[in-house]
Amino acid sequence: MAEFDLVVRGGQVVTAADRMMCDIGIRAGRITALAEGLGQGAREIDARGRLVLPGGIDSHVHLDQYQGEDVTMADGFETGSRSAAAGGNTTLIPFALQQRGQSLRQTVEAYHAKATGQSYVDYGFHLIITDPTPHVLGQELPALIADGYTSVKIFMTYDDLVLRDREILEVLSVTRSHGALVMIHAEGYDQIKFLTDKLEQAGHTAPYFHAASRPQVVEREATHRALAHAELTEAAVMIVHVSGAEAMEQIDWARRRGIRVFAETCPQYLVLTADHLKGLNMDETGGKYVCSPPPRDEAAQAALWRGIAAGVFDVISSDHSPFRYNDTQGKLHPKGRTSFRWVPNGIPGVAARLPILFSEGVGKGRISLERFVALTASNHAKLYGMYPKKGTIAVGSDADLTLWDPERRVTLTQDLMFHGCDYTPYEGLEVTGWPVTTILRGKVVFDAGQPLGRKGGGTFLSRGASVSA
Amino acid sequence: MAEFDLVVRGGQVVTAADRMMCDIGIRAGRITALAEGLGQGAREIDARGRLVLPGGIDSHVHLDQYQGEDVTMADGFETGSRSAAAGGNTTLIPFALQQRGQSLRQTVEAYHAKATGQSYVDYGFHLIITDPTPHVLGQELPALIADGYTSVKIFMTYDDLVLRDREILEVLSVTRSHGALVMIHAEGYDQIKFLTDKLEQAGHTAPYFHAASRPQVVEREATHRALAHAELTEAAVMIVHVSGAEAMEQIDWARRRGIRVFAETCPQYLVLTADHLKGLNMDETGGKYVCSPPPRDEAAQAALWRGIAAGVFDVISSDHSPFRYNDTQGKLHPKGRTSFRWVPNGIPGVAARLPILFSEGVGKGRISLERFVALTASNHAKLYGMYPKKGTIAVGSDADLTLWDPERRVTLTQDLMFHGCDYTPYEGLEVTGWPVTTILRGKVVFDAGQPLGRKGGGTFLSRGASVSA
Amino acid sequence: MAEFDLVVRGGQVVTAADRMMCDIGIRAGRITALAEGLGQGAREIDARGRLVLPGGIDSHVHLDQYQGEDVTMADGFETGSRSAAAGGNTTLIPFALQQRGQSLRQTVEAYHAKATGQSYVDYGFHLIITDPTPHVLGQELPALIADGYTSVKIFMTYDDLVLRDREILEVLSVTRSHGALVMIHAEGYDQIKFLTDKLEQAGHTAPYFHAASRPQVVEREATHRALAHAELTEAAVMIVHVSGAEAMEQIDWARRRGIRVFAETCPQYLVLTADHLKGLNMDETGGKYVCSPPPRDEAAQAALWRGIAAGVFDVISSDHSPFRYNDTQGKLHPKGRTSFRWVPNGIPGVAARLPILFSEGVGKGRISLERFVALTASNHAKLYGMYPKKGTIAVGSDADLTLWDPERRVTLTQDLMFHGCDYTPYEGLEVTGWPVTTILRGKVVFDAGQPLGRKGGGTFLSRGASVSA
Amino acid sequence: MAEFDLVVRGGQVVTAADRMMCDIGIRAGRITALAEGLGQGAREIDARGRLVLPGGIDSHVHLDQYQGEDVTMADGFETGSRSAAAGGNTTLIPFALQQRGQSLRQTVEAYHAKATGQSYVDYGFHLIITDPTPHVLGQELPALIADGYTSVKIFMTYDDLVLRDREILEVLSVTRSHGALVMIHAEGYDQIKFLTDKLEQAGHTAPYFHAASRPQVVEREATHRALAHAELTEAAVMIVHVSGAEAMEQIDWARRRGIRVFAETCPQYLVLTADHLKGLNMDETGGKYVCSPPPRDEAAQAALWRGIAAGVFDVISSDHSPFRYNDTQGKLHPKGRTSFRWVPNGIPGVAARLPILFSEGVGKGRISLERFVALTASNHAKLYGMYPKKGTIAVGSDADLTLWDPERRVTLTQDLMFHGCDYTPYEGLEVTGWPVTTILRGKVVFDAGQPLGRKGGGTFLSRGASVSA
Repeated sequence: MAEFDLVVRGGQVVTAADRMMCDIGIRAGRITALAEGLGQGAREIDARGRLVLPGGIDSHVHLDQYQGEDVTMADGFETGSRSAAAGGNTTLIPFALQQRGQSLRQTVEAYHAKATGQSYVDYGFHLIITDPTPHVLGQELPALIADGYTSVKIFMTYDDLVLRDREILEVLSVTRSHGALVMIHAEGYDQIKFLTDKLEQAGHTAPYFHAASRPQVVEREATHRALAHAELTEAAVMIVHVSGAEAMEQIDWARRRGIRVFAETCPQYLVLTADHLKGLNMDETGGKYVCSPPPRDEAAQAALWRGIAAGVFDVISSDHSPFRYNDTQGKLHPKGRTSFRWVPNGIPGVAARLPILFSEGVGKGRISLERFVALTASNHAKLYGMYPKKGTIAVGSDADLTLWDPERRVTLTQDLMFHGCDYTPYEGLEVTGWPVTTILRGKVVFDAGQPLGRKGGGTFLSRGASVSA
Repeated sequence: MAEFDLVVRGGQVVTAADRMMCDIGIRAGRITALAEGLGQGAREIDARGRLVLPGGIDSHVHLDQYQGEDVTMADGFETGSRSAAAGGNTTLIPFALQQRGQSLRQTVEAYHAKATGQSYVDYGFHLIITDPTPHVLGQELPALIADGYTSVKIFMTYDDLVLRDREILEVLSVTRSHGALVMIHAEGYDQIKFLTDKLEQAGHTAPYFHAASRPQVVEREATHRALAHAELTEAAVMIVHVSGAEAMEQIDWARRRGIRVFAETCPQYLVLTADHLKGLNMDETGGKYVCSPPPRDEAAQAALWRGIAAGVFDVISSDHSPFRYNDTQGKLHPKGRTSFRWVPNGIPGVAARLPILFSEGVGKGRISLERFVALTASNHAKLYGMYPKKGTIAVGSDADLTLWDPERRVTLTQDLMFHGCDYTPYEGLEVTGWPVTTILRGKVVFDAGQPLGRKGGGTFLSRGASVSA
Repeated sequence: MAEFDLVVRGGQVVTAADRMMCDIGIRAGRITALAEGLGQGAREIDARGRLVLPGGIDSHVHLDQYQGEDVTMADGFETGSRSAAAGGNTTLIPFALQQRGQSLRQTVEAYHAKATGQSYVDYGFHLIITDPTPHVLGQELPALIADGYTSVKIFMTYDDLVLRDREILEVLSVTRSHGALVMIHAEGYDQIKFLTDKLEQAGHTAPYFHAASRPQVVEREATHRALAHAELTEAAVMIVHVSGAEAMEQIDWARRRGIRVFAETCPQYLVLTADHLKGLNMDETGGKYVCSPPPRDEAAQAALWRGIAAGVFDVISSDHSPFRYNDTQGKLHPKGRTSFRWVPNGIPGVAARLPILFSEGVGKGRISLERFVALTASNHAKLYGMYPKKGTIAVGSDADLTLWDPERRVTLTQDLMFHGCDYTPYEGLEVTGWPVTTILRGKVVFDAGQPLGRKGGGTFLSRGASVSA
Repeated sequence: MAEFDLVVRGGQVVTAADRMMCDIGIRAGRITALAEGLGQGAREIDARGRLVLPGGIDSHVHLDQYQGEDVTMADGFETGSRSAAAGGNTTLIPFALQQRGQSLRQTVEAYHAKATGQSYVDYGFHLIITDPTPHVLGQELPALIADGYTSVKIFMTYDDLVLRDREILEVLSVTRSHGALVMIHAEGYDQIKFLTDKLEQAGHTAPYFHAASRPQVVEREATHRALAHAELTEAAVMIVHVSGAEAMEQIDWARRRGIRVFAETCPQYLVLTADHLKGLNMDETGGKYVCSPPPRDEAAQAALWRGIAAGVFDVISSDHSPFRYNDTQGKLHPKGRTSFRWVPNGIPGVAARLPILFSEGVGKGRISLERFVALTASNHAKLYGMYPKKGTIAVGSDADLTLWDPERRVTLTQDLMFHGCDYTPYEGLEVTGWPVTTILRGKVVFDAGQPLGRKGGGTFLSRGASVSA
């Protein structure tokens, strides 16, 4: 009888700190041995010439999230998780969005209902709090944190989502006491509204002006404000989707003061610029790139890469937020056509994140392979309380593995994305290095360009507290 | 017949850049000659051994300002301006406070009614905007700027005064277009409320906790936010009463970015500390020192002095905001006794400002006499649009002069203040250097420790745009 | 009999802080009255429509300075001071250069011999110390400071001039004790030599590579080092000819720490760039622009203007260092033709400084007229111990005045320079605003485009300690 | 027959990124398996309740280094390596010190002669270059780098060691081309000499004045200079033994500019202060703490801990530099008694480094266990070219392991140090956590408080290029 359910043999295994040539022995979905010359597995995968990395974790994805009546997200849990697996990921943390007036517990249950039995990969939920009533903060949130929902997201902008500073302080006060991490979308509501109104008054309604309505100062101010709230409450915060030097410098400064701040950026800020929004009519393609914050310019990209090299960023996520382009429920819904203000904010990216970062980061010598693992898997697991079950290749950890062909050259196209969207903003981008096989708890879920796992193989993850990344 | 109405003879005349031994010839309230050996004046003042400085300008004083029904300010225009003259000042710029719902024009007229015929010194009005309706911003404010009310003050805290960010942006947008300067009280409303509630919940209601409810991060965050709004609108702003290094560093950084920012500090942040608030019961004296921002510590004082030396600050004002201490309409009104939250914020200081700064600044070698003149007179005149009529000793300027005995040693006491308050927070402070004679447009208004001018000698100043300080 | 020797009537008089319409009364070379409607002068100048500014002071000019045997400076005291007067200046402070082994006292006497009876404007001497023996520092320097040579210059580069760090520390220690100011040429000898050798080894000998041999890091490192020495000794230093953001940021940072540092920049860093050096052969014109530090790029120019606006710089000088271009004793002496290494470093500029700064600074709204006066006259007088005799228009000061036509448009050309050089690096630059009349101690020395004073009208200035600028 | 030579069973294995409960299987000195329930080993070690960490690597130790004729180091390779093993280390990188005039190859051979057959742990050599002749840099250094001496150390101070800036640039230029890392002792020679002379002239010769002779500005200036040289040459540098905020800030700033800089600090800067030098007579104990840079104050300690947390530091080493105290060849040699200037610089610490950092860092919650591993082992291996052979616990790596009892409380005393020194500067310091067993390539070399390995079990390590830490 085979010693292992699966042996991944002969690959170069890489973690956030190490690389080693060894076999990986897997039993009951867990790694039980890393060794030279392991005994037989019931199944064997030949990994010679491959890199074997921890399965990617994407801690910033939006799936089947309520967008109001006019607009529908292009991905639910099935297509979203399939796209994730196609892109080398084994864990997602999408959001459970509280609508105002709604119970947080009911919110979570509603999202469980959307997800259960649908996902190709494992998943948890961040709680988006939009209505921090005393009951929500005093009763529901502590209970949910104890139940494994150990991260919260709050917004400093968007009509339906924005919290006021007092509300932010109250949220941080509770998460500080109960040990959750708060993700903050740091763009200032009032500045955006002010600029948007002025732009519309001037007749500037095309997608391109989306970027003009949210210059870096908007993000920097909100970031400074959020960090001041974190300083005052001593809460831990994650500033998500940092888009340029200005917010980044605030974070760097805050960390040196001892503020408990973590930082995330995304591929769109590393390879896109505001120029991609340049379509000047609504039916041109500028709308495909409308996301917030907007991509900036090449100077911002360079600054972010320097920040990544210098250790400012802890995680890189996709902020996958998919809307179909040619669809009256998507980017070009009737109201969206009238002004950039109404174009749904967000772009798909869960499948493209890892190949882009591998190629632009590791391939171009900007980061080491170990740092790639840390930024795309290990640190997500540690900061969001899934470590050591997830995020690494170690004895006792879940056998979530992605095999990479580091030399394969691929041109990114829509048909490689396996998502519900009708486009990818990265169409035509050439990358070197490709995730060829995705393994979730010892089961192959994506291989040779096709999903193999069954829908529903992914299960819910109850998460604990952050550990040091 | 005398060549001049008044000759001030033999003093050392000091301006923001120069010092010279000369006589000053005055006709019809204006300086018409600076010269050696001037001809005879109808009146002569022997200034030998004296410094002759431009009359002090205090651009941050609150007089007879509406405080709600329970509390009354201790100084109206008569006593406030008398105290100013006693302290070597010839010009004040108090505030005309718009109450919500009130027309800005009516506001101004109401304050004119309070001031006319009452003041010992000349005065203008800043407009405090609390209700920036489209009519106020679109019609009234531009008209008032054109009429000589070229400065606005806005608050980022206080229930009755606070503007939201969108309102701040709208105000800045108008002042940018019409050429007014916006003074900003930069402390964040929500952080203060949050901390105050927590302190009260913990039973911490004594005056000392006023300081705990407004740590430097509160001021720094609001300052960063205000400067971001200034950057976005390209408006000119004056951050008033900066209390420590943290807000100061934001200002310094912003200026190097090209943001149009000016900065003010006050004597209370240079010679008082939060320890003065240490009285732990309401009937102890801690309440005497309740002002906002609160005085900090010795490190903050040192930082401010370094900032003054390095040119970060443009003006030093008193923020005179007088409330009687032993008075049911003052600091200890019935509600004020229940918590620091309700103690009226503000301390008197219009008479003490110049002697304190002269002694601590010039006397201790921290600033030159010329810089003293700039910080206490010339820069106020330039930035608030009264130059060259006010703020200097030059041919053609108003003959507003203060004669100083640089050697006189004085212990500050309540009876030297000539204000309507029943205490001075500087009681017992020893200073070297004293303003012995105050001259307004060629008339002596204070001399030998007594007011000489007649109430009502001061007149309203219609002001223009800022000029470079 | 006339009340005054000279009355300058009806101009707008400008100082570092003020501007006023008044007449200026002058007796025995001194200003004795500033007034409206002054009595008669033996001579009268109609200044209506003119700005009347303090005569320019250029505290950084090299005249008749020993350059070794192969090279001769293009200006001695006669032509150099004539050029200064042509450009609106009334005071110069050239250098007395100690050659190694030479007594400092003898050095000074030798330069007096060169200057006496030759100068059109008043002058002092800075002492360049190249051989700080115990006798020089212990005996000669204190005596010379007491005699009115209250400023020293030291070099951190150039074979014949460079001091080692220990020597710099010893010089600063003496100037700290005896109250002199030390000008520092902050470029690092070893980095320059290293780069120069590498460039020459690569065959890169054309003038353009002069800039490559001295990138900003060379200047920044030396500036940091000099400021550290100043911090350690508590001496006052002036970092001269700052060329870009990097050194400037060091200075700004140091000042905020309380280091006693002053800063100078020059017109060449505001209007020229390294591109002017682009001639790739020795007989092209690139050599005309060889000076140290080299001009940088447009980003550096913008940074310097921001620094000027923010108050980082105290003075702007010319660093006039004239060499003829088509001359075997000048830029193209035989050795100079072999490599940029041997091209004499320096460009002429004493006549062009004020018009360029007036036009680019005041005319383009970057600085006020008052700040122009401070940067080009008053601060030089204060920091180099000539105030209030020099540097302002005040009762009792020397009647050193320059009348400006603020509207006159002039194209800078060699024939307007009146120097001994055969070119100006600013040839063709268009300026608005021109110094039409230069008055030294009540005598017109340059007017209507021609020198009027007699050679030798300028006298030596014994200087005192710095006063606060 | 046993599957493994040694199995370490049941411990918690920790790497720079991960922790896992597993057995470690070792064959022929290498780790060949990490697994649950490993088969039998010829020898077994029960590690239940223990942490199993990579053996410590100390990349900054001085052993048997030539100190001139009067002074002898207290440790050669035998006692030094024994002390290292006692403190949980399995690899050292001491220095081969070139004396001026000496061939670098001969230097290396001489140090091999000292080390061969003497060491309890593995070792490499850094090359201290004191005489960078063209032959040394052009011939010997490239050859030695190719032979596995891939790191160089240079000094900016000390009479016998100091390099001038030009020499530093030449060294960096060669290491840049040939791929070596340069450690820099960054304190400025001239400032130290200047201060030392002044202190001695004032009669300040006691050990305490050692600290006064090297204030932080001395270290900051040299650090800035070194970083400028690194910027100019694009070489990689390691600033060693950073003692406080000032140098640290320079490093942080440089890294954000893209300069290739790494940083080291040492336990003495985290737990000692200049107060330890307070003995005012030579025969008091102050001399025991004379090392360079000197320990600073508690503010500096706090700044360094913040820097460690924020990722500024890559490695923490001991800078073990042992001199006997009561010994005429040690701290109190005859000349050393006359002034702090002559007291040998350095303190012992190779045995104390890990326990101090474990207790003060991990135990007090300042760093994670993973970061402890990175700072004390993995990063040393990576940066100094020994990875993956050394510095981690991974399949294929050398079986260098240290077993820790994380709860053991120990008071540091001289008899626990096992070094050749007659004191430890950490006498009496209480720590929690202790390295109980040290294993080199599968052999126990220290256990239960006694050396077990044989002298000479350690072998020389030829090293490669740095990899990303």
